[in-house]
Amino acid sequence: MSHDLPKSDVAEHKPHVFDQAIALHATSDEGHYQGYIPAAYFNMVGPFGGVIASTLLNGVLSHPQHEGEPVSMTVNFAGPIADADFEVTATLIRQNRSSQHWTVQLAQEGAIAISALVLMAIRRETWEGSDLTMPAGLPSAESLPSFDTRQLPPWFHNYDFRYIEGGLELVAGMKAQENARTRLWIQDKPARPLDFLSLMALSDCFFPRVFLRRGQMMPAGTVSMTTYFHAGRDQLAEAGLQPLFAEARAQRYSRNYFDQVGELWSQSGELLATTQQIVYFKG
Amino acid sequence: MSHDLPKSDVAEHKPHVFDQAIALHATSDEGHYQGYIPAAYFNMVGPFGGVIASTLLNGVLSHPQHEGEPVSMTVNFAGPIADADFEVTATLIRQNRSSQHWTVQLAQEGAIAISALVLMAIRRETWEGSDLTMPAGLPSAESLPSFDTRQLPPWFHNYDFRYIEGGLELVAGMKAQENARTRLWIQDKPARPLDFLSLMALSDCFFPRVFLRRGQMMPAGTVSMTTYFHAGRDQLAEAGLQPLFAEARAQRYSRNYFDQVGELWSQSGELLATTQQIVYFKG
Repeated sequence: MSHDLPKSDVAEHKPHVFDQAIALHATSDEGHYQGYIPAAYFNMVGPFGGVIASTLLNGVLSHPQHEGEPVSMTVNFAGPIADADFEVTATLIRQNRSSQHWTVQLAQEGAIAISALVLMAIRRETWEGSDLTMPAGLPSAESLPSFDTRQLPPWFHNYDFRYIEGGLELVAGMKAQENARTRLWIQDKPARPLDFLSLMALSDCFFPRVFLRRGQMMPAGTVSMTTYFHAGRDQLAEAGLQPLFAEARAQRYSRNYFDQVGELWSQSGELLATTQQIVYFKG
Repeated sequence: MSHDLPKSDVAEHKPHVFDQAIALHATSDEGHYQGYIPAAYFNMVGPFGGVIASTLLNGVLSHPQHEGEPVSMTVNFAGPIADADFEVTATLIRQNRSSQHWTVQLAQEGAIAISALVLMAIRRETWEGSDLTMPAGLPSAESLPSFDTRQLPPWFHNYDFRYIEGGLELVAGMKAQENARTRLWIQDKPARPLDFLSLMALSDCFFPRVFLRRGQMMPAGTVSMTTYFHAGRDQLAEAGLQPLFAEARAQRYSRNYFDQVGELWSQSGELLATTQQIVYFKG
């Protein structure tokens, strides 16, 4: 007997485009998965790095041996990903009492394209503090225009960008900036409850700082990215469906590489994640 | 026929204590080494993390297939290292036209204690810029007292620390600080020409920020550290034998983990490396 759902319900129950993108299919070999990132998350060359990182993190979080919550993830983008299936292998390399160390690799046709390290931990309450505070006096997300992504690669369409300063429109205007600071409100589009997977992808939402600094596009791409998670599952759920405040800055640009740092905050001013990356550029 | 050197010459030709510590012995299997970190670089539990990181980097730089210069290194400290020999394995996982991606692991008795990712690159001249500048008006290293390390674990004795602010003496004084910023001049002791190996170790010279913030010692240890190298071999050689200016700050402390960020500058104001780490703490 078939239980056909009405069409509207089918649409409602279809996974979010992000969850479709990072989906992995377990094989009979534990820790080995097959995946494919659909065109919806494509960037200039291959998929958006943030969704690649989340796919690898998903390899750990889907593994029956995983324990605790992600604390740290480093992803090295070693080579391009072709528009084809790939294999993800998640390996628990060290089990401690309250933490786990994992390596994760993504390969296509036997060549490693992505290599990652993940720290998982069962976290307990301790003294709490922050040496950073969210900037005061920010305009609300609602008061800002949603950035028009129509001329941009597909992955941009899956996020709602509301730039406060240092937006990509400045690059189009070819106006070099004194520094490469960007501030924005950002959220999955359509909205999706926040979790470690979406936060990992969001931590790569900043376009290359060198575009802004020089006021021009040039070949550039993240080579290594590290994100630290400061909030737990419950705190992320609380941040819920509201946009996050995100800020990115650059440090030094020299001989084909520059580094950028960033922070992601909940609307209520909680620092959810800090991130840094080293980016190749040519120009 | 023996060529006995006079005693003074023997001392002069003996490798620097740092080079002794990070030395690896190649085995017949390419990329596999044996090592042992001597007591001179011991910390509270096992060796100083900075020298562990440098030992793994040495595994890449000693490999006949390595090309270019280190751009990025992430080291995950998965488990303690016992006072015994260990094996280091450096694997070239991806060779690109001008970059290489390596994994490096350190194991003892078959258990992985350390896991690292290294990006090497042949770097070419490009546009140069920096969005950070070294703080102005710093007191000179010579005008500051050398920190007395006699009561501290052995590794401290191999560095000359000259604290400008946020020194470890504040921790002994049990005075909690409003933030965890430390500024200091630092140098190998005895002095040693700067290279990627010593810079990697120096990027871990900051004691856990939570000690300073809370004004007390507590169990704490780096779990993952990432350093980006902005300077090349020649620029490091120029920085030469002079102390580096180093600054570290913390971001958020929550449920057993906090993150710290730092920068290392040459005396002439060139940003040589930026670094971040996530640190376990209990208290």
